[in-house]
Amino acid sequence: MLLTIDDLNLAHQRIAGHVLRTPTLRHEIRDGLTVYAKAESLQTIGAFKIRGAFNMMLALGAEAEGVVAHSSGNHAQAVARAARELGLKACIVMPSNAPELKRQRVEDDGAEIVTVGPDSEERRVRAEELSAQRGWPLVPPYDHPLIAAGQGTAAIELIADAPTLDRFYCPISGGGLMAGCATAFAALSPRTQIIGVEPLAGDDTARSLAAGDRVTVAAPDTIADGLRVRTPGAWTWTVNRELVSRVVLVSDDELRDTICWAAQRLRVILEPSGAAALAAVRREGEGACGALLSGGNIDPAMLSAILA
Amino acid sequence: MLLTIDDLNLAHQRIAGHVLRTPTLRHEIRDGLTVYAKAESLQTIGAFKIRGAFNMMLALGAEAEGVVAHSSGNHAQAVARAARELGLKACIVMPSNAPELKRQRVEDDGAEIVTVGPDSEERRVRAEELSAQRGWPLVPPYDHPLIAAGQGTAAIELIADAPTLDRFYCPISGGGLMAGCATAFAALSPRTQIIGVEPLAGDDTARSLAAGDRVTVAAPDTIADGLRVRTPGAWTWTVNRELVSRVVLVSDDELRDTICWAAQRLRVILEPSGAAALAAVRREGEGACGALLSGGNIDPAMLSAILA
Repeated sequence: MLLTIDDLNLAHQRIAGHVLRTPTLRHEIRDGLTVYAKAESLQTIGAFKIRGAFNMMLALGAEAEGVVAHSSGNHAQAVARAARELGLKACIVMPSNAPELKRQRVEDDGAEIVTVGPDSEERRVRAEELSAQRGWPLVPPYDHPLIAAGQGTAAIELIADAPTLDRFYCPISGGGLMAGCATAFAALSPRTQIIGVEPLAGDDTARSLAAGDRVTVAAPDTIADGLRVRTPGAWTWTVNRELVSRVVLVSDDELRDTICWAAQRLRVILEPSGAAALAAVRREGEGACGALLSGGNIDPAMLSAILA
Repeated sequence: MLLTIDDLNLAHQRIAGHVLRTPTLRHEIRDGLTVYAKAESLQTIGAFKIRGAFNMMLALGAEAEGVVAHSSGNHAQAVARAARELGLKACIVMPSNAPELKRQRVEDDGAEIVTVGPDSEERRVRAEELSAQRGWPLVPPYDHPLIAAGQGTAAIELIADAPTLDRFYCPISGGGLMAGCATAFAALSPRTQIIGVEPLAGDDTARSLAAGDRVTVAAPDTIADGLRVRTPGAWTWTVNRELVSRVVLVSDDELRDTICWAAQRLRVILEPSGAAALAAVRREGEGACGALLSGGNIDPAMLSAILA
């Protein structure tokens, strides 16, 4: 095992007091299908990413005056917020096509933003340069055991709230959230089937599982801005290839429809990526299904248009 | 004391397992003002009303095959849902101007709906008739100690999450939620100032406090459909006149603006009544302020228009 339940339990202790114990929202979708939605959209900063950021930054200790990160959005907010609360500086490399709302929030938390092109590889390289120049550690968005351990604490809470899930649906981008959550389910609820969810246009993990090795796809054209990573993380892949039983692909139309559904039925606001797991449950779920609602940071204009 | 913390603690034990332990969402609004929002909008049925309904129906026991209730919306859903889960029939008297979404949900839970005119007095009379005819107990929307004790359990949880509140803001319609919550604060956090919130057009409690006796206002013209009661409850008034320090009035524009603000900052969907306490905190709050977000059942078309 590359990541253990002990790592997750330690992370859970470490970040307690810094993150919200989000609720599990139970809803009977139809006869024979009940969803248990772990609403990380309600997390501080509106996304699960704060769990991993706090876990890694607390584990690192105060070895430098600042940290560097690269992200299209929610990880950027997470590192900026955790740095502010821990009294550290933060330098965040963001793509030029990041949602304005997510950029603004990073600025509001006092972080320095460095803007690069839309490619995720480009921002990774720039962040590594900045980290080396300043001597500030890099807090990676997903491809690190401390990040995945932090994200997996959401699954520990979900399992405590809903101990008899038949299936667990979780979005996969770089794979850190899934690697952590899958580790939790494998240890604490081994009978639960672990199912990944990706947008149709960003099916790199689905293709990688089919090929038996990491595949890189073209820059995904999807409204799910948090799921536009082009290839699984090198490390997260080693966990997820063992623990994820299959991947469901969802369309942008399904994401829009699920944002409306969640607004009416669960009274939560989801960003497109945050609706992915729930969209998959609505289409093909059976029995008791966990769904990880990963984030809720959506521009009001987009939300209004989707609800209209 | 007409209602005691022992009544509330008993209610809390009774309804545990039937209702959601909703989260308290913390957000720094500005320097020197942090809100602790008790998100009852995320409660099953999307409103705090399920707490009081379960408390009274569980306390009554299985003395009849059904129950009767009258409500403009959320209390109707609460009684219909609790009846379904407890294996009872439910007959709900609703006004002709109740939001379609709220009507539909009551039907979905299998309750019988009897439609009357928009006046709250008319539906109360009709419900009492039906209760007498069928021998089914009436579950009143607010004016009963068992209902108020159930609603007050929300404040017990809020105080556990945020034990050092300077102020607590809570909407007042018939006054059951406030009577229960005020009783909790008086016992568990006596230094917290207890502040009621009403719509400008439905200021019956504000006028009653000024007059020293219950005042009846004209049918309130406000988007806050949950706060259109015309006079304080006879029993709730006896509690609230002692414990509520003052009432803040909010405009429909402030409610709309706060629905948008909550969508972006807290990622929750609020109905107009559910935004009232938060609107008051945003305008005049200082220090650490609790706000009870009472409900999240809003028609998608109205929400889309407000967010646009």
